[in-house]
Amino acid sequence: MTVYDVIEAKKRGRVLDGEEIAFFVRAVADGSASDAQIAAFCMATLWRGMTDEECFRLTDAMAKSGETCARPDVAGVCVDKHSTGGVSDSTTLVLVPVLAALGVPCAKYSGRGLGHTGGTLDKLESFPGLRVDLTPAQFEAQVRAVGAAVAGQTKNVVPADKRMYAVRDVTATVDSVPLIASSVMSKKLASFADVILLDVKYGGGAFMHTPRRAEALARLMVSIGRAAGRRMCAAVTCMDAPLGDAIGCNAEAREAVEVLAGKRNDLSALSLFHASKLAAAALDISEDEALRRAEEALSSGAARAKLAELVEAQGGDARYVYEPQRFAFAPGVRTVRAAGDGYLRVDALALGRACVELGGGRKKEGDEIDRTVAIFLQKRPGARVRAGEPLAEVRYNAPSEAAFTLIDGAFRVAGRRAVRPLIYTYIDGKEN
Amino acid sequence: MTVYDVIEAKKRGRVLDGEEIAFFVRAVADGSASDAQIAAFCMATLWRGMTDEECFRLTDAMAKSGETCARPDVAGVCVDKHSTGGVSDSTTLVLVPVLAALGVPCAKYSGRGLGHTGGTLDKLESFPGLRVDLTPAQFEAQVRAVGAAVAGQTKNVVPADKRMYAVRDVTATVDSVPLIASSVMSKKLASFADVILLDVKYGGGAFMHTPRRAEALARLMVSIGRAAGRRMCAAVTCMDAPLGDAIGCNAEAREAVEVLAGKRNDLSALSLFHASKLAAAALDISEDEALRRAEEALSSGAARAKLAELVEAQGGDARYVYEPQRFAFAPGVRTVRAAGDGYLRVDALALGRACVELGGGRKKEGDEIDRTVAIFLQKRPGARVRAGEPLAEVRYNAPSEAAFTLIDGAFRVAGRRAVRPLIYTYIDGKEN
Repeated sequence: MTVYDVIEAKKRGRVLDGEEIAFFVRAVADGSASDAQIAAFCMATLWRGMTDEECFRLTDAMAKSGETCARPDVAGVCVDKHSTGGVSDSTTLVLVPVLAALGVPCAKYSGRGLGHTGGTLDKLESFPGLRVDLTPAQFEAQVRAVGAAVAGQTKNVVPADKRMYAVRDVTATVDSVPLIASSVMSKKLASFADVILLDVKYGGGAFMHTPRRAEALARLMVSIGRAAGRRMCAAVTCMDAPLGDAIGCNAEAREAVEVLAGKRNDLSALSLFHASKLAAAALDISEDEALRRAEEALSSGAARAKLAELVEAQGGDARYVYEPQRFAFAPGVRTVRAAGDGYLRVDALALGRACVELGGGRKKEGDEIDRTVAIFLQKRPGARVRAGEPLAEVRYNAPSEAAFTLIDGAFRVAGRRAVRPLIYTYIDGKEN
Repeated sequence: MTVYDVIEAKKRGRVLDGEEIAFFVRAVADGSASDAQIAAFCMATLWRGMTDEECFRLTDAMAKSGETCARPDVAGVCVDKHSTGGVSDSTTLVLVPVLAALGVPCAKYSGRGLGHTGGTLDKLESFPGLRVDLTPAQFEAQVRAVGAAVAGQTKNVVPADKRMYAVRDVTATVDSVPLIASSVMSKKLASFADVILLDVKYGGGAFMHTPRRAEALARLMVSIGRAAGRRMCAAVTCMDAPLGDAIGCNAEAREAVEVLAGKRNDLSALSLFHASKLAAAALDISEDEALRRAEEALSSGAARAKLAELVEAQGGDARYVYEPQRFAFAPGVRTVRAAGDGYLRVDALALGRACVELGGGRKKEGDEIDRTVAIFLQKRPGARVRAGEPLAEVRYNAPSEAAFTLIDGAFRVAGRRAVRPLIYTYIDGKEN
């Protein structure tokens, strides 16, 4: 068998067997497949698709292509939440303290932002001093002591995915449902969570523009996780507009604190939704009861206290949790105003890109981030607005015409109210 | 515009405009497109196809991606013949001397063999001492003096094709009609021939298995050449079985000499066919008259004398042209016998591969060739044979089970005679 044979078979639309897929993934991981061969395989897969069984084999082989994360030695059910990437989505910063306050151990590995989507690690580092490079021993000790830790993965996890993703990123082969599913789920299978909640975004700011396509991706990922023996669930949620009211690292860290202090918006609603599903599964209670406890953890301040504990345990300045006015923002201010009367539409993708243009996000891995860049929404999508009314405030250090053009285009006033549902559907892996 | 954008557009099935194609080809030639991006583009093209207009733009941009071959300063119409690659096809070694004998200047650049197909330069070098690395000045001087020269291209011709072909070769993206057409025709457009005859192979030993697919490729290439102002014609010819009766460098060089000395078989028939088409176009005579002159050049020995002149001019031992018994063959002998009674079928692809396995061809560019390896057919495809009757003789230095298995499988005896036409169709560019 050669890598060429596997590409040829997929190109002809044949279903690959387990041996062929394992051979290909080994060749990707050990470098014997070239970048060109990976690109050809990915484009052929985008063209021909994969059966669920094939996609599971690919995911499983990828998960086994490198080291795996051992489960920390903690009591209880380990839960994980994974979002396919959105704008102004700091649910993890809300969800982890809520779950920890409910006694659900949160041993969470997270990632960094790239392109128009933000990353949990970047937002956490907005608490000055906070470190995300915990050793496995530190990580485990913190989960035992605090009930929660959020860190970056230091291990050589899923090297096959790293190579494939790097190739897909430059060859227009990212938007293949089986390739997205195997990329996401290989990292989940290489880790230890017993219960995994997938937040699959749909809409203009997501890879999946239509809810149906997002649902197909969600169902495929749920089936892969189940085939690997994990308990799975998935929510298909809207990413037409930013989830919260803030974009940028400091802005989103501050908004998470505000939600823990009582602010209610789509960000808090989705965080509570996720918390209820995961707490119900982990604690074996009803979702109503789980939701009640999660709301209580928010209103009592217990979740906020957990965030302070987590920030402190990871070396960060916990005063920011109680004094959000400490978060700094760039001095440049630009106000966006309504161009006419009507109903507001807000384009998450354009705002995410604008934030990158202003230095608040990364164009490529390793880029420095300006945490003080921010876009604050003052009106929510769907709101009735009048010409000249302020819609948003932009904070920047270096003005960027490209960014301002994106931002101006991102706020449109239309005659008709058009807001798609925040939660399009929920897939309970038990029924799947 | 980025390379990514061009891949994305082709992936979505959009017709690329001239600017996009020129941008992509420049990026391939100057190295700013990665191998992975080239592979993704080629797989997307294999998937989505190209319009004839798009394919012409690609070919034209590729032809202009490097140096071009200046027309030698000779009188008359310059003709060229290009085969898409076959087994036991030494028509060039017959055609060039025939045309030269008729007064048609033959300034021919040829290539080397790779995989199961042989190359004209390798076969010519079977005349000991013959050199194919002529300088442009030597090349031109020889065409003026002898009327014919066959050399390898020393210039940096069509670098975009070199990169694209190297990528396609390992990514299962060779068999795309527009990519084959642009690869072949870009090299023709970078050269100077006024009249180009394409010999497009169909069958088991060709890239195009069906005659219809081969005809589609031929028509596309004819349309590209015409759009570039060349006079074009094309023959779609059979490559189920080897064209001649000999496979291997010395064997094929010897067979060419034998045809020039009077041997008649499919190789001589196809060479005369090509000669009649090209001589008619170059000399502005009827094809009947051209065929008559070509047959006369063969029977009179004029063509054989031209080959001797050419071999000598290029430093080779011309005695081999008159004493073909001088060609040496490997000492190992294996006889293939009929497994039963019936009609013979011979698989060109398997024999071409077997020749490579025995060291008589190249697995990769730059491999040394053992010129003394040979497979001689003693019966033609379609012949009525009896069990035990000898069908072929194999000559080898190092026995190879892989080769012998291929050879045994290549000779099948069937109850029904099945021979497809040598010339499936002929496309006269005037009518196209």
